[in-house]
Amino acid sequence: MVNKIAFVGIGRMGANMARRLKDCGYSVAVVQDSREDAAREVAEELGASVATDLSSVTAAADIIFTVVTDDEAMRAIFAQDALLQHAAGKIFINCATVSPAVHEEIDAACREAGAHALEACMASSITQARDGTLYLMIGGEEEIFKQVEPLLLDLSASLRYIGPTGKAAQVKALVNMVMNINTAALAEGLGLAQALGLDLEMLCEVFSQTGANSRVLETDAADMRDRDHDCFFSAAHAAKDSGIANALAEQASVKVPLSQATEAQYRKLIELKRGELDKSAVAELTFPGRL
Amino acid sequence: MVNKIAFVGIGRMGANMARRLKDCGYSVAVVQDSREDAAREVAEELGASVATDLSSVTAAADIIFTVVTDDEAMRAIFAQDALLQHAAGKIFINCATVSPAVHEEIDAACREAGAHALEACMASSITQARDGTLYLMIGGEEEIFKQVEPLLLDLSASLRYIGPTGKAAQVKALVNMVMNINTAALAEGLGLAQALGLDLEMLCEVFSQTGANSRVLETDAADMRDRDHDCFFSAAHAAKDSGIANALAEQASVKVPLSQATEAQYRKLIELKRGELDKSAVAELTFPGRL
Repeated sequence: MVNKIAFVGIGRMGANMARRLKDCGYSVAVVQDSREDAAREVAEELGASVATDLSSVTAAADIIFTVVTDDEAMRAIFAQDALLQHAAGKIFINCATVSPAVHEEIDAACREAGAHALEACMASSITQARDGTLYLMIGGEEEIFKQVEPLLLDLSASLRYIGPTGKAAQVKALVNMVMNINTAALAEGLGLAQALGLDLEMLCEVFSQTGANSRVLETDAADMRDRDHDCFFSAAHAAKDSGIANALAEQASVKVPLSQATEAQYRKLIELKRGELDKSAVAELTFPGRL
Repeated sequence: MVNKIAFVGIGRMGANMARRLKDCGYSVAVVQDSREDAAREVAEELGASVATDLSSVTAAADIIFTVVTDDEAMRAIFAQDALLQHAAGKIFINCATVSPAVHEEIDAACREAGAHALEACMASSITQARDGTLYLMIGGEEEIFKQVEPLLLDLSASLRYIGPTGKAAQVKALVNMVMNINTAALAEGLGLAQALGLDLEMLCEVFSQTGANSRVLETDAADMRDRDHDCFFSAAHAAKDSGIANALAEQASVKVPLSQATEAQYRKLIELKRGELDKSAVAELTFPGRL
C-alpha cells in the first residue's frame, strides 16, 4: 500500500517537509492550514488538494503530519469535530513544540478514536526540513514508530526514538531551554563588549577557543552584531519554548532563575513588537543604543 | 642577560607556571605567597628562594609574575611598601583575573616607579599551566609585550596581544561571564531532566548535537551528574568574575539579567559554604534533593 500523506499547518517547516517527501516519491495528498491562501499555494506546487475542514484531511490520508504553532492550536485540531473523526487506524505525527502534557492528552484522544499518535520533535530548522536532514526525536509507541521509520528516515539526518509519549517533548523543551539561555547569554556578552569598544570579531574568536564557546556562538553571533534578524526560529517561539520548560520546572519544584530571566527577555521582545524577529534579536535588548 | 623570574602568589596556577618555566630552562629565582608554607614547598621543589617581604622579590628578579586572587590582593601587593620599591626597569606580568580598572591603576603606579606592567589573562586552568598550553591574552604596551613574548610563548598554546592595559581583562571578564552563564544554564537543564526522570547520558548526547551544545557541556556535564566537584575553577572565582562583568555592565548601562542571575547562583553557593567547590557545583542548586 502506498501511504497517502497529509499536512496540517503548512507553514515554512511543514511546506519544506512536504517538498522533501514529494522529492522522495511519496504522495502528499492533501494539505490544510488556517491561512487558506498559504495552503492553496503549497498544494498547487505539490499537486495536492486543499482540505477546507479537518475531518476531510483524515479521510484523505493514512499518515497525517501536524506542524502547528502551540498548545492551543494542537488542542484545536484534535477537538471533537476535527481530525479525529473516522480516524481509526490513522497515524498522526505531531511535529509542533508543545507541552509534554498536551502530547499526552492527544495520545489519549487518539487511542480513544482507534488512531495512533507520535511526537516528532525537531531540533532543526527550515533548511534541514527541505534537505531531509532534520534532527528528529520521537515519542510514542515504539511499534508505531517502527511502522513509519522509513518515512521519518527520509526526513532526517538523525532519528532517535526517545520513549513513551511526552518524553520527546520534554527533551525538546530542555534543548530549547538551554539553547535560549545560551543565546541570551551571548547577547549579553556581545552587547557589553560593544559598549566597551572591543572588536567583536576578535572577541568571538576568543569565545570560540575558550569556555565561552557554544553552538549559538556559531549560529547567532554575526547576526547579533549585524542586526540580521531574518527569522529562522522566532523570538516568540523562544518565549513559548522557554515557557514550556519553566512550567515543567515549576511542576517539578526545580529552580531555574536563568531560564526565567531568558523567558522574560523574549517576552520583552514580543511586548516591543519584535516577536517575529529571529531569536538572535535578543541582542537588540543588550547592544547599546538599539531598542 | 638571563632573566631572573619571580612568582608572587604561588597557588596551583602559579606553581605550575613556575614548574613549566623551569622545565624550559628559565631561572625561577624567588617565590612569595601569603601562605608561607606553600611558598616554601614550591621553592624547595624549584630550587628557588622564598621571599618574606615583597620588596625583596623585586630586588631579586627582572620579571615578576603575579598570580593573586582578586582586586584587593592585587592592590595590596602593589601598595607603597611592596613590589614597587626600587622597581625601575622591572616587568610585572599580572595574571590574576581582576577588574580592568585595577589593571589601569597598577599600570599607572608601575609607570610612576619606572617599571612596566602587562596583563596576562588566562582562559585556561592548572593542567594547561603545567603543560605550557595556556590560552593567554595580553594587555599593556606592545613594546613591553614584545620583550617578554618568547617567555610567554613557552607558557602558552595560544598567545594574543589584545590592546592597551585593561582591554585583556575586559575580554577575560566577558569570556568568564558567558562561560559562567552557560554553566549555570546547563545545570538548570540537567537538574530539570533529572527531576523528569530522563536519561542524562542520552540528553547530553542530544544537547551535543543541537543548539544546546557548548564547551561547558563537554567539561562540566558529567561532573554535574556525578557530583564530582573537585576544583578546577571555583564557584567563588565564578562569583567574582561574573561580578566584575556585571560591574562593567552597570558602568556601561548595559542590562545583563542572566549574568546577574548567574552571579546570584554562585553567591548562594558561597553562602552555603560551597564556594571552594568547582563551578560545576552550581548543579547542586538545581538537581532535585541535593542542597
